[in-house]
Amino acid sequence: MLSVEDATRLVAATIRPLPVEYLSLPLAAGRILREDLRADRDFPPFNRVAMDGIALRFAAVEAGQTEFRIESTQFAGQPPTPLLDPEAAVEIMTGAALPKGVDTVIRYEDLTFRTDAAGQRYATVQAYPPRQGYNVHARAADRRQGDLLVPAGTRLEPAEVAVAATIGAATVAVTRRPRVAVVSTGDELVPITEQPAAHQIRRSNALMLQAAAWQAGAEAEAFHFNDDPEALRRGLPALLEGFDAVILSGGVSKGKADFLPETLRELGVEQVFHEVQQRPGKPFWFGRQPGGAVVFALPGNPVSTFVNFYRYARPWLLAVQHPETAETLSLPTTALLGGPVAAVLTEDVQFKPRLTHFLLVSLQPGPDGRLLATPERAGGSGDMASLLTSAGFLELPPEPEQFPAGTVLPAWRFR
Amino acid sequence: MLSVEDATRLVAATIRPLPVEYLSLPLAAGRILREDLRADRDFPPFNRVAMDGIALRFAAVEAGQTEFRIESTQFAGQPPTPLLDPEAAVEIMTGAALPKGVDTVIRYEDLTFRTDAAGQRYATVQAYPPRQGYNVHARAADRRQGDLLVPAGTRLEPAEVAVAATIGAATVAVTRRPRVAVVSTGDELVPITEQPAAHQIRRSNALMLQAAAWQAGAEAEAFHFNDDPEALRRGLPALLEGFDAVILSGGVSKGKADFLPETLRELGVEQVFHEVQQRPGKPFWFGRQPGGAVVFALPGNPVSTFVNFYRYARPWLLAVQHPETAETLSLPTTALLGGPVAAVLTEDVQFKPRLTHFLLVSLQPGPDGRLLATPERAGGSGDMASLLTSAGFLELPPEPEQFPAGTVLPAWRFR
Repeated sequence: MLSVEDATRLVAATIRPLPVEYLSLPLAAGRILREDLRADRDFPPFNRVAMDGIALRFAAVEAGQTEFRIESTQFAGQPPTPLLDPEAAVEIMTGAALPKGVDTVIRYEDLTFRTDAAGQRYATVQAYPPRQGYNVHARAADRRQGDLLVPAGTRLEPAEVAVAATIGAATVAVTRRPRVAVVSTGDELVPITEQPAAHQIRRSNALMLQAAAWQAGAEAEAFHFNDDPEALRRGLPALLEGFDAVILSGGVSKGKADFLPETLRELGVEQVFHEVQQRPGKPFWFGRQPGGAVVFALPGNPVSTFVNFYRYARPWLLAVQHPETAETLSLPTTALLGGPVAAVLTEDVQFKPRLTHFLLVSLQPGPDGRLLATPERAGGSGDMASLLTSAGFLELPPEPEQFPAGTVLPAWRFR
Repeated sequence: MLSVEDATRLVAATIRPLPVEYLSLPLAAGRILREDLRADRDFPPFNRVAMDGIALRFAAVEAGQTEFRIESTQFAGQPPTPLLDPEAAVEIMTGAALPKGVDTVIRYEDLTFRTDAAGQRYATVQAYPPRQGYNVHARAADRRQGDLLVPAGTRLEPAEVAVAATIGAATVAVTRRPRVAVVSTGDELVPITEQPAAHQIRRSNALMLQAAAWQAGAEAEAFHFNDDPEALRRGLPALLEGFDAVILSGGVSKGKADFLPETLRELGVEQVFHEVQQRPGKPFWFGRQPGGAVVFALPGNPVSTFVNFYRYARPWLLAVQHPETAETLSLPTTALLGGPVAAVLTEDVQFKPRLTHFLLVSLQPGPDGRLLATPERAGGSGDMASLLTSAGFLELPPEPEQFPAGTVLPAWRFR
């Protein structure tokens, strides 16, 4: 049977970057950039005044001058007027462009002012600037025109939005959202607005997968099919053509109502693998429609569906939003793409079957900054309520059988 | 001057939970729940078959019986039919309700089948179940009818959505989104679609604040005012009435164009504080309009605006979405509400002024699971580009002056 490592590699091999779309900057927030953003001007674009006060020649201060006539006043947004008298000063506000003839700013807190009978104002320096250029944010101090600021492949977080705005990138190229069909199967499932009979339950997996796909930046639409091969044959083709990924739950085990693998193959979906050496989620089926969707057919027990979504489907959904296909193939286990972080097991764990074990855990930051993982007392892969008190799952390799407290293991977070 | 601790307490004192709204379950994903969700039935609601195989009486196996006549077949979603012959078995599928007369399931992998001349099927047990009830997820094993599953105040993550669907919570009570007006001020700022003159820059802070407010679950609309008290007096009242929070950037320092504190007071906004013992962001002004918005007037340097948003405004926006007002008052520094996590400084840092210092850092998980914080070489509070390479900021208290490598400090993450 396939190892988790091999299954991960086979899923990763289907990753292709999705097409680009062009969005206005506010709407692009949160998306993955697909073009390089470069500085259109120097950062800052001019010698920018960093404090309110007066601008003067440092040489005059050095020469011992303490009182300065205010020759003019300069606000932010005004074209700068050069200083005419080298022994005078310009009263100046934060954000203004430093005029010609001055090089240093002294803030109000370090000045006193007087006005003479003619109405002329004078400033007296109380605390001396330590160097030429003090309180001036020099042109090009941070970045030069043409510098690469935000490379393609970066998520547009608030800082990137600010920089994009500054360089006038009013429309940006980003990856369009992955389009996902989430599909529940099973005759025992009734809509959430209905009262189930004693032997029925409500459809929860599709809504869970939809919410999780949204969190991964996807558009997701929810569907349901009963355990009826004819209904699947009629309904699935449109989903396989119209979506980037089809994520099914249920119908992949060895039961008599588990038609999915056969029906998917009949519809032309190439099986990549069926069954992985893992618990929960051994019956996981994965395939791809040539020219169409990839298909994650996850086991229907809620914990299996949930854990396998976060282990395989979420990294896939994050990776196809990135442009670097080649690098992406090695990326699916990094935190950037929803991959695991290191966590410390807080108690001994034993697991005998030679399967990779996805162990639900709560996660708490420890006093020294390490992330502590405490196993959840879960009732198995049908115990949906155990997901409420867990924050993720540890990935325990098939060997050894014993994992003592203190072992550092990869933790996949889902909250 | 006010300490960061006191400023935090004064901001927290204005936190009131926002009103409730009722949303269909899919649309409520990501919101804060404002009602308790309880189990409408037991979890599971019936003795649920956990594997495909046959269901039989454990007593028959214990008595040494190895072959069982298949009396009937039971699919998930079918009303269960009781077993009539206590020495026979029911072929049964995962998700089915266990019929009366059987108590244990043996999976296909542990069975062989034969069919006699009359077409009657028989199963022979190859591996014995270790106990009565094996492969049956017993009714009420996880939760009982009436149990509290998801308390008010919980964010509806995918796991909560799944549980809400299961109990038929098709419409749920959640906090409506905070409504935020983000406002840039400054005559030097031109729209992002325009080519700035040499002494001008484009408006980036409002778009940055908008994206950051969205990330905190708010609705956010962007506005701009020039440094003109009359324009502020005309435009601000509608924002103070129509929004839960008004977040301004710029116009709060000591400069001649810094009209905001005075104008806000004229408009009836009560000043809670002005100036905090911190860098960057000393001129931070905070107030509240009686019966209206709270006002975060942040200094306009991009790093000041950014850091002070994450330090004060984001926790506020997260907290007002929560119902527990009393507890919330002590919560603004917890990770739940966007508060800091512990991180380890990777190099020595010196900071002399007796101010709380917000130090931009990159954050990397260390090999032992600890979060490592490396100071960013930033050019001061005007160096917007330094935000691109930082992941958050450390909060260094006013004393001591020296923070040796290895010190564990609170880190506020913004990515």
